[in-house]
This record gives sequence, C-alpha cells and structure tokens, in this order.
Amino acid sequence: MQLRRVKILGTGKYLPGLIVTDEDLDRRMGVPDGWVSKATGVGHRHYVSEGETASSMGARAAEAALADAGLSFADIGCLVCTSGTKEQPLPSTAVFIQQAMGQAESGVPAFDIDSTCLSFLAGLDVMSYMVAAGRYKHVLLVATEIASAGLNWEDKESAALFGDGAAAVIIGPSPAGDSAQIVHTALKTYSKGARYSEIAGGGTRQHAQHYTNENKRPYLFHMDGQGIFRMASKLLPGFIQELFEESGTSMEDFRLVIPHQGSAMAMRLLRKKLGITKEQFLNITPNHGNTIAASIPMGLHEAIHQGRIKRGERLLLIGTAAGLSLGGMIIDY
Amino acid sequence: MQLRRVKILGTGKYLPGLIVTDEDLDRRMGVPDGWVSKATGVGHRHYVSEGETASSMGARAAEAALADAGLSFADIGCLVCTSGTKEQPLPSTAVFIQQAMGQAESGVPAFDIDSTCLSFLAGLDVMSYMVAAGRYKHVLLVATEIASAGLNWEDKESAALFGDGAAAVIIGPSPAGDSAQIVHTALKTYSKGARYSEIAGGGTRQHAQHYTNENKRPYLFHMDGQGIFRMASKLLPGFIQELFEESGTSMEDFRLVIPHQGSAMAMRLLRKKLGITKEQFLNITPNHGNTIAASIPMGLHEAIHQGRIKRGERLLLIGTAAGLSLGGMIIDY
Repeated sequence: MQLRRVKILGTGKYLPGLIVTDEDLDRRMGVPDGWVSKATGVGHRHYVSEGETASSMGARAAEAALADAGLSFADIGCLVCTSGTKEQPLPSTAVFIQQAMGQAESGVPAFDIDSTCLSFLAGLDVMSYMVAAGRYKHVLLVATEIASAGLNWEDKESAALFGDGAAAVIIGPSPAGDSAQIVHTALKTYSKGARYSEIAGGGTRQHAQHYTNENKRPYLFHMDGQGIFRMASKLLPGFIQELFEESGTSMEDFRLVIPHQGSAMAMRLLRKKLGITKEQFLNITPNHGNTIAASIPMGLHEAIHQGRIKRGERLLLIGTAAGLSLGGMIIDY
Repeated sequence: MQLRRVKILGTGKYLPGLIVTDEDLDRRMGVPDGWVSKATGVGHRHYVSEGETASSMGARAAEAALADAGLSFADIGCLVCTSGTKEQPLPSTAVFIQQAMGQAESGVPAFDIDSTCLSFLAGLDVMSYMVAAGRYKHVLLVATEIASAGLNWEDKESAALFGDGAAAVIIGPSPAGDSAQIVHTALKTYSKGARYSEIAGGGTRQHAQHYTNENKRPYLFHMDGQGIFRMASKLLPGFIQELFEESGTSMEDFRLVIPHQGSAMAMRLLRKKLGITKEQFLNITPNHGNTIAASIPMGLHEAIHQGRIKRGERLLLIGTAAGLSLGGMIIDY
C-alpha cells in the first residue's frame, strides 16, 4: 500500500452548449437510422459551440469545484491540467485555464500532466504526494477535452463515441481522524500498443504545416478498437490481481467502480474481466460519451452528486488509455 | 524549505546530426553576413535530420543517463517526458521514448509533464516527492525537443535562437549520510503573459485541419521578446527574493547557476537582475541554442561533465518560460 492522507474536497463539471444526438450522427455519417445508438449507447453527447474552448470549459468546471469545496481560488496552491488533448501546442492548457478563471496575475503555478485518457488518474496520483508532503495545501486538477475537434468522420465507430466536456477536482490534506485517503495506485504503460489509438500528425514528427486536404487522415483521431480490445483483455486480469495484492483489497471492498467511459465494448470488457457487479459499476456513457481524460473525474463528480458514493466508502478508479496504459486507483472517499 | 532526500544519479545528452551555423541561417533568412551571430551568439546549433524524432533522441539521452548512473532500464520505476513540444498530439511522448528504448513490453508507467521551457524543472520537482515517499525508487526524466519543426522563418529574431536536442536525468533516494538533496523549489505562472510566447494553432482551439498555406503563421512559433523582457524584468527580483527567503539562501551560496538558455538577452537579464557572477553562470548557448525544456537538464549534464559542479556543492536551476512562468530550484548535488 502507498497510503496518502489526501482528501477529495470538491468536484465540478461542465458540459458545453451543443447537444448532438445519436440520430444527428446517423445523418451526419450517412448510416442507417439507429446505427449510432446501437454501436455506442450514448444517446446524446455535448460538443463545444462557437466561442467555447478547452480553457473556458475547464474554468467553469474549476469554479464549480471551488464552490463545492467551499474554497476560493486564493486557497489553491497549484493548478494542474490533466487532459489528453491540448488547447494549443504551446503553452500549457493550465495557463489558459488560469487566465479563463480571471486569475492571470495570481502567480499560481500552472502546468499539464498528460497520460491521454488516464491523465487525471496520473495527475491525481502525482499531486497527492505533494499535498501529503505539505508542499501545496490545495491542488486544483482540471481535465477538459474537445474531442470533437479532431474526429475522423470516415472512421464511424470511433467518431460516434466521443463527447466534449470538463471536470475538476480539488484535493487537500485529510484532517486527523478523517477516514478519507488515497490507498493505492497502479499505472502501467505498454508502448507495444502505442499506435492502437493515436493522432499521428500535428506534433513535431509530422508538423501541422505539412497538412493538406488530400492528406487529412494522420491529423485526425485513429483507433484500432480490436487491437486495444485484444491487448487490454490479455493485460487486465494480471493488472487488477497485482493491484489487489499490493493493496490487500478485493473487488468486494468497493462500493463503486468508476471506469474510464471508453466505449460500450471497453466497459463490458472491464466488467467481465474484473468481475464487477452491475451495482458497483458507474456508467455515465449515456448523455456524455467518451470525454477522454475528463471521463474519470466526471464519473467521480456524478457518483458523488448522485449519492452513489458517500464519505467513508471505498472506490476504485480504473481504465485503459492510449499508450497503451492501464491505471487503477483506490480511494477512501 | 522543502527538503527532499533525493539525488541526481546520472545524466545524459543527445544532439542530432545536422549542424547549422549562424552563417547558414544568415543565408537562409537573407540577412547580412554576421547578423545571426550578433543577434544570437549561438555559433552553431543542431537540427534533426531525416529519421530522427523526439523519441529517438530522447531514448539516446536516456540510455546515456542510465550508463552514467550505472543502472539499467529494469531499475526504472517511472518514465516522465518533460518536454515543451510533443512528438504527436496523442499519445504522450514518454510512450514513444519507452518504445524507442526497446522497452515496449516493460509496463513501466510513462507520461508527460509540460510547463513549456520549465517542464524539466516542474517534472523534477513533482517526481522528487514520489521518490522521497518511496513510491518509485528511480525515475527517468527525459526532455527532448525538435524546435526546428515549428519555427517561423519570417520571425528572424526568434527562429535563429533555437536548436534541437535531448537530455535525460535519473533521480533516486539519497542514501543516509549523503549530502545530496533537493532543497527548495519555486514555480509561478502569470497567464497575463500567455500570448508573449506561443504556438496558437495545432491544438483543439484551432485544429491542424484548418491549416492553409495562406494562413501558416498561427501554426508556427511566435515570440514577443520585448513583452517577455518587460514582464520578466518586473517579476524576477521579487521571485528570487522570495525563493531565497523561503530557503534561507543567498546568491553567494551557489557554486553554479544553470539558467534556461532562452536567448542572449534573457541570459543577460537574469545575470543582471539577480546579481550572478560570471564564474557562477553556466552559458551553453554557444553550440546548442535554446533547446526549449531540454535546455536546463542539458546545462546540468554539461556542468557535471565539464567539472563545473561537484558532489556536495549547491546549484540553482532557474528560468522563465512561456506561460509566463518563472521557476527556480535549489539542489545540493
């Protein structure tokens, strides 16, 4: 175990203005009526509309989290953006979130941690050690994603899965006598699967200036769902067994499991491979879709605000991500 | 003070194959002979040539750091890429470094920390708490940058400053009785200066698919040198005063100051504003240029291998970055 006396003090969420239904996507992609609904089970997802940016969404989620925690920005020691996509290649998205919160002269350190869909989990893991050591009292973690900007509409199965949105979480020290703590985390990366889920172009290897209308594809999201499925199926059982052994826990200990809402297929795989009951499993794919790294903190926010998890109860955050990475975190909420 | 019993165990560096002299750039940019040399003082910088990527450079620097530390990849608990640019928008560059090191099935967690030119400093700061807490024994930090991919050749003053390259550092616990430790860190971000240094296009706000030959500019690096200079001039004295007060140190305590090699102008500003003697100041701008976030760990590598810093001596890493961010870290090497 790697106990950290760190507590989740507040959470917030923001969904952008444009509602896009499965039926809208059926028409957009030219597939038969009902295709998207059957393939994704999303129902509707939100996309940004004119003027909405990753940082504006992140700022709104962060403000909601501050209100939820009963804190103000002046209480925050560090702002970390834990998204899988960036608002600009440079500087960090956290900088723009600070700006969008009206805190451009605050001096509060702001940087990004990126582990694609597991960015929030990786960021929470890392920053909890700084809180536990007393370096920062309160850390604001914000995951904010505009998936819709980079979808490949010819790759229908992946394009239909995603939604835009943001979620924020504030952590701080757990007071003496409080049961709240982070119990254990496991992260693994197997770059053998690096190309199963990627946006190849737009970085330094294939710069945006080489983009042409005739060669769009590398600049858009690509996913090999079957490749991910095969690799995750093979790795997940050993991963969870090690997580449980190292932490002295088993699946029955968890009031709730909050998975990364990758896809209906990924969620079924998780539940089946890990033996999670329906009651234990949080499914917010309907009305959200896959919101990349915002997915797990959004699930956490929903779980708390829907009353699915209460103080003193134990929860498991878990997911796979492009990389291919696997992550699991045990929290006593 | 925020003492952490963490030691720098090894460093490595890699410079790519293509050597580009000031004279080459005079010709490329159509400026009078001697203009680049006078403006930048770089002499020559390295650019990647065909087949070299951020991850291939990072892997070579990482292998050199492992050899320097007398460790193998199997000793590494976590691989963190601390670059200001990305190889691809998705997944993390750390994933590709793991792959380029031939460790695609290792499972070693791999993610990115981005605070632009201060990414290494922010990453070292954060990860040192995980090492101090015993979560990971050895952490491999890699900063690897291809600045040349995104330069705007019409913006001559900034384009001439940069070079490509990679540097890697391995940290681990400081043994009992060893004087090596991280003494203190300060990081500040003032997003009022967010647009002084940026690449506006290529993220989710202005996606690569909107790129046209008629509208290249937003996708290339933009720098308002005067804006940065004014803002940094105003902020640096208070920043360093606070760093010294909080850590109980003063400039005389440092055997060596390793600055981010932003530009000749930025380096002069630092020396003047902070009262650093010439003997204390590491200048590796000649033959390197500004290598973005690789600049500080490359300086650290050079300082150690040139014998400018020895075990038991105190050093200061310092710099400004796009954001605008300021960072300083005190290390007993």
